[in-house]
Parts: sequence; structure tokens; C-alpha cells
Amino acid sequence: MNHTITSLNIPAAEFEGRCQHLQGYLEDQRASLAVIFDNHYILYYTGFAFIPTERPVAFILTARGEKALFVPRLELEHAGSNALVDRVEHYLEYPDQPHPAEKLAVLLADMGLQGKYAADQDGYPWILGYRGPSLSQVMGRSPEPLAGFIEDQIMVKSAAELSLLRESVKWGHLAHMLLQRYTRAGLSETEVSLRASMEATLTMLDTIGPLYRAQSPFSDGASAGYRGQIGRNAAIPHALANNITFNAGDVLVTGASAPVWGYHSELERTMVVGPASDEQKRIFDHMVALQDTAFSAIRPGSTCAEVDAAVRAYYQHHDLLPYWKHHTGHAIGLRYHEAPFLDLGDKTDIKPGMVFTVEPGIYVPELGGFRHSDTVAVSETGLESLLRRIRKIRNPWRKKNRCARRAARRKIRPHRNHGRFV
Amino acid sequence: MNHTITSLNIPAAEFEGRCQHLQGYLEDQRASLAVIFDNHYILYYTGFAFIPTERPVAFILTARGEKALFVPRLELEHAGSNALVDRVEHYLEYPDQPHPAEKLAVLLADMGLQGKYAADQDGYPWILGYRGPSLSQVMGRSPEPLAGFIEDQIMVKSAAELSLLRESVKWGHLAHMLLQRYTRAGLSETEVSLRASMEATLTMLDTIGPLYRAQSPFSDGASAGYRGQIGRNAAIPHALANNITFNAGDVLVTGASAPVWGYHSELERTMVVGPASDEQKRIFDHMVALQDTAFSAIRPGSTCAEVDAAVRAYYQHHDLLPYWKHHTGHAIGLRYHEAPFLDLGDKTDIKPGMVFTVEPGIYVPELGGFRHSDTVAVSETGLESLLRRIRKIRNPWRKKNRCARRAARRKIRPHRNHGRFV
Repeated sequence: MNHTITSLNIPAAEFEGRCQHLQGYLEDQRASLAVIFDNHYILYYTGFAFIPTERPVAFILTARGEKALFVPRLELEHAGSNALVDRVEHYLEYPDQPHPAEKLAVLLADMGLQGKYAADQDGYPWILGYRGPSLSQVMGRSPEPLAGFIEDQIMVKSAAELSLLRESVKWGHLAHMLLQRYTRAGLSETEVSLRASMEATLTMLDTIGPLYRAQSPFSDGASAGYRGQIGRNAAIPHALANNITFNAGDVLVTGASAPVWGYHSELERTMVVGPASDEQKRIFDHMVALQDTAFSAIRPGSTCAEVDAAVRAYYQHHDLLPYWKHHTGHAIGLRYHEAPFLDLGDKTDIKPGMVFTVEPGIYVPELGGFRHSDTVAVSETGLESLLRRIRKIRNPWRKKNRCARRAARRKIRPHRNHGRFV
Repeated sequence: MNHTITSLNIPAAEFEGRCQHLQGYLEDQRASLAVIFDNHYILYYTGFAFIPTERPVAFILTARGEKALFVPRLELEHAGSNALVDRVEHYLEYPDQPHPAEKLAVLLADMGLQGKYAADQDGYPWILGYRGPSLSQVMGRSPEPLAGFIEDQIMVKSAAELSLLRESVKWGHLAHMLLQRYTRAGLSETEVSLRASMEATLTMLDTIGPLYRAQSPFSDGASAGYRGQIGRNAAIPHALANNITFNAGDVLVTGASAPVWGYHSELERTMVVGPASDEQKRIFDHMVALQDTAFSAIRPGSTCAEVDAAVRAYYQHHDLLPYWKHHTGHAIGLRYHEAPFLDLGDKTDIKPGMVFTVEPGIYVPELGGFRHSDTVAVSETGLESLLRRIRKIRNPWRKKNRCARRAARRKIRPHRNHGRFV
């Protein structure tokens, strides 16, 4: 409303440019306006972060460039002081009488909806108990689909977005360092994870200062943990177990991140508590080689499918396909998973500014799961790791260095130099 | 698959009963099968908790009672050992080739989809970068809507669900006690919140033991915090600010919960740092009276709308409508907001077994926000607070007791006896 800048790093002009791009699309499509319900998309175009509930929120952009936010009374002042829009219109409550969907229909007519219009969804999604008519029902005609266009727009990150992603990696990395430091046989994953996450979060807040905003529905501070991927459970990628106690010989798969003005990174490392077995070392080495294969294949001009094909060829060549469970990686940014996907079925061209996680995994029953995940940005010339300070240990078992080998026997080091990263 | 019991408290027979209720509905509707994509609904019918991503997951129940889960390769073992279904079918990846939506269509045909069928959504929702055809597109006919039926089924909680909700309240309450204990002028909300949440979580895990499962996409431990509702910001209910430092005179609105096998409660209290001003006390008293008004109005046979009407009448009678921002409360359980809503527009009959938050708020610009939220269950005879140990202080300023008044001047006590609760 009053064009408050809501972020240290995404300038108001960038939000304006994002809206102009969408406006151009509406003109091309001869659509009178766009209606957007998704909370991440609304943050992307307006800078307004909010908690989605049963109360619909919608951003409306007309082909002439007028911007409005439709919010419940609850969010009126919050939207008014944060959203980069021309007007904030509100309804009282959900479900109330009349239903908010009817009030939205009145607003859309007032803003000049005529003929074709576009929407990311055909009405507010039925989340958290919300029920209501579709846009097709209240407007008497169906919206043109818009989500694909928005997903394409969001794929390529700006310099400001890359700065936020680097900031996210920095604090995810700190949480990860502390997680590694505190992990010991006999402790539980929860106490180690909570301690590491708390200390990293407080340090992040002390460093960035009171301007910090998470603006994320996924988390509100730096975090690192194991999500139950411990020991034999590590063979189940999204195990959702809780509070497992570490034992000597356990394979661990970590995960760390930090939300920074809505942007997220991902850092995952495979570690072993105590001496690793020969079989654990053999699989670990293959996992590192798989990730290197992906790094080599990611370049502007290639497709996402080509990267995954190169990685799958490695699995096949080394008889690892029985241990394959998922594609090579995914884009990341406002959400912790985004399109495009480093997947055989995704023909998207890789472009400078795209940001991917690179995380091929090997899951061996009874032995455990092995996966590193790095967040990397595609540049004009190749690949940039968003992890600033990378340890020099590429692969501890191939090193001649005795100290590194000794360290590796205690615990697989989570950081290594991928060579091409500087 | 192997009918492992995934919860201490919801027995396998109860999951079976839930499915039979849905099966009866399919028979009544002459629908051949149901397709369910929502992760909370899938947990409700199958006991399978998972992280929703770009990879579709679907639960299929046929009118003859056959149950299948459709998952990506990534979730195969996880679903196989946790979901109470007859078969788990998997596809490789998203997007892959063929697209998972096409593989789902093959499975639905194999399971006997003929004529009418029902679904909670017309295809997997486009979250986290997923794109795909609707069920209407791949099956050649549109599904009958099912979400309304499921929402109605979920509204009334069983004895086992009420036990889990009481367990959730217990640990949310502990986190809240610690939050209150650690809150001091000069400290930041983040350090106080992280410390209280960590200690409560570790105590909960030590008490329940290794069987504990959060099974929640919203959080994985007990938590209590302020979400930025501090001082003048407390007038913005969903402020999403971060790391505010407490000052004397600040009005604080807390929030506490703990996920327990997928179930959530809500506990919120209004407190003042240091001596409260007369105006703060006046508004606080009105807020308590508003909540009491709601408690008195909630009974089997009334409607949700009647409760909100009684509460709004109090606002109106005391000239408080300018400070009104939202309805009286919402149901709660598998999600932190659920239908029905204690709202003028919700005509749902209140029934025994329904669980509501009761949280009318008063938001005064420059002064702050005032809101208590209690989680209560409707019984045959009235209302049960799910908070077990409730302090005896009903309203500190109306008490003759000098100690209570003195305590109140230091900080508004977060717990009070609502009289009808035992």
C-alpha cells in the first residue's frame, strides 16, 4: 500500500519488474486480469508474506497494471504496511455472510474483469477446512491457467535472489557445522538438532540484526537435523522418525537450511558415526562420484533430463540401479522444492540464474542411505556452489593425507571441495 | 501393507471404521471408488504420514473395500511398513515418463473405476512445482466432489483422538509454562521461545519415549512463542515479525502447541511485561469476558453461528466492534485450523466430540492485541477443557486476594479457572 520495502535485498523495483512481466503476458493473452491465490506467488509479486489459512487471500493484477490485494479483516493492517500494491480490499471473515468468494467476485468486476481472465487456481484451494465455489462458478466463466507461466518466471533467479540464497546457505551451513560437532554415539538426534539449530538461529539473528525476516511458511530460523535418517532408517529418504539415539557404525544423512526473506537453500551430508566399514566407504565413494557426474552435466544449454540421464548411466554402469530411489535434484528458492527437476522427464533447458539442489542418493537395505545435497547456481560459464567456505577434503579415502584419513575414520567429513567450485 | 500399528493411540480398528464409513458413502452415491490426495486425509484413513512434495501420493478406496496407496519409489518402503492398506503401488518419479498421472489412471482402471467416482480434488494439486493433468483429463470424466464429506467426517473426534489432543495440550502447556518463566524485559522473543520449546520437546520425548511420533507437516516438537505479537505489533494477529526484544509495558500474545501422532492443540495467552496499565487491564477483562461468553454458548444442539453471534453481541454492547478482527474460533485436530468455524456464517450444528479453539480477540491500535485461546471438547453435557491443570485465578483484577493482584501487576497470569471446567 505505502510501498514499504519489506526486504533488505529484493528492491521494490524488482517486485515492479516481476509484475510488469506478468502484465505483459496478460496483454499477449488478451486477458483482462490475473487472480493469484498461492502464498508463495503472492510473496513473489507483492512482497507480502502471510500464513495461509481457511481465510482466502488473493492478489489481482489487471492488464492495465492495477494491483490489489484481497484479504480478511485479520490481515488488513499487515497487508497494508507490507504489500507493494495499489489497494488492499478486505472482507470480514470466512465463512461469514456473504461468502468471501462472492466479495472477491464483486472486486474482480470492479477491477474490470471482462472476457478472458487468468488464475493460478480455479478458486481458493480447499485447505484447512475452507469450502467455497470455484472462480468458474462465481464468475460464470473459467479462468485461463496461469500457474505454468508463473512457475516458468520464478525459475530464473535475479542477482538479489542469489544473494538471499547465499545468505541462506551461510546459516544452514553454520547449523550443519554445529550439528556435526555435537553428534555423538549415545545422544539423541533431537537434542543435537535442537541445540545446533538454536545456536545457529541466535547467531544468525545477532549477525543480521533486527531487520531479519524469515518470511517462510516452512520454518522461522536456521535448522539442521536428521529427520530419522539414521542407521538402517537412513535407507528411507523421508523417514519422519523421531528422536533416534546415535550408535557407532550408523550412517547418517543430515539436512540443513535457513529461511531468509522467503528464500531457502538445502545442504545435506552423509556421515558415519565412528569408523566406517569398507562397504560404507565403497557406497559413499559412489555417491560422491554420482554427485560429481551431475555437477559436470549441469551447464547452460543442456536440459534437466540430460543431467539425470548422465547420473542414471552411472548407476547403471556400476550396478547401482537397485539402490536408486529418486531423481538427481530440484530447483529451490521460495519453496524448498521447485520446478524444474533434474529428472529424465523434465525437458526444461538449463539457463543461467537457475538454482538447483544436486543430490543423487544410494539406499542400501540394512546398510543405510547415502546422499549429499548441495545448492548450486547456474552461471553463464558453469556452476557456482552457494556454499562459500568449502573444506579442501574432496574424498577422504582417496587422500594421501594421514590426518584426513584419520578424521574420516572418526566420521565422514561433511564438506569437500568439488574442484570446479572456487 | 503389513498392518503395523503406527500409533500408540489410534487402533487399527478405528482406521478400518473410518474407511468403512467412507465406503458406505461411496455405495450410497453409487460411486465405484474414491481417490484422495490430501496428506491429512490420507493420514486419517491409512495412518500413513508423509511429507507432501512434487511427487503425487494418492489413497484409493473402492466401493468393495479394497485399499491402495499410490506412491513414488522414494516412499515405497515407508508406505509399505506404515500404511494400513491392501496394496502399495508405485511409480518411479515426477515428472518422469510416463507422467505419474498416467500411471495413476492405469491403477484406477485396474481397481475397477467404472461410471461415477469421487475425489477430494480433481487431480494432484500443483504444489512445489508439480504440473499435471486433472483426473477429468486423464479419466475422461470428472470426479464427484468428496472433500465436503471428508471434512464432515473428520469434525467429530473419537475417544482415541481426544486422548491424543489432551496429550498435545499437555506438552503445549509445558512449553508455555517455560516460555512464561523465561520471558523478561531485555531478552528477545527468539531466545526465549527456542529455549522453552527445546526443553519442553526434550521432556516430552523423555516422557513418552521412543514410540513418540509427531506425524505433522507443521512441526516436530512442542513449541511456544510469540510470532512477533509483542507490544504494538500484538495488534496484528499474524504479524510474522522476528526476534523482537521485550520491553516493560509490552502486551504479549503467546502461542503453544505440540504435534502428537498428527494431532494438534492450541494454547494462547495474553500477558503484559511489568505492571499493566489501567487501559490494558480494562481491555484484558473484556477479552476474558468475551471468552467466557463463548464458553457459555458452546453446547450440543447450538450452531457455530450462534456462538459467534453471542460473542459479537458482547463486542457490540461494549463498543468493542472497532477492535474486532476475527471470528471466535475454529475446530482443530489433524490440522491447526479445521472446519467447522465458530463464525456467523457457519450453520453447522455443534455435536459431542467436536474440538474447538475459543479465542475471541481485541486489537487496539497503539495499545496491543488481547487474546486467550483454549482448546475445548464438546461433551454430551457441556464443555471439557483439554488443559488438565488450570490455575485458580479467574481474573486477577476482580480477585480480593492480594497475592494474585500483586502477581497480576508483574505479569498477567496465563492460566485461569473458567469455573465450569473441573
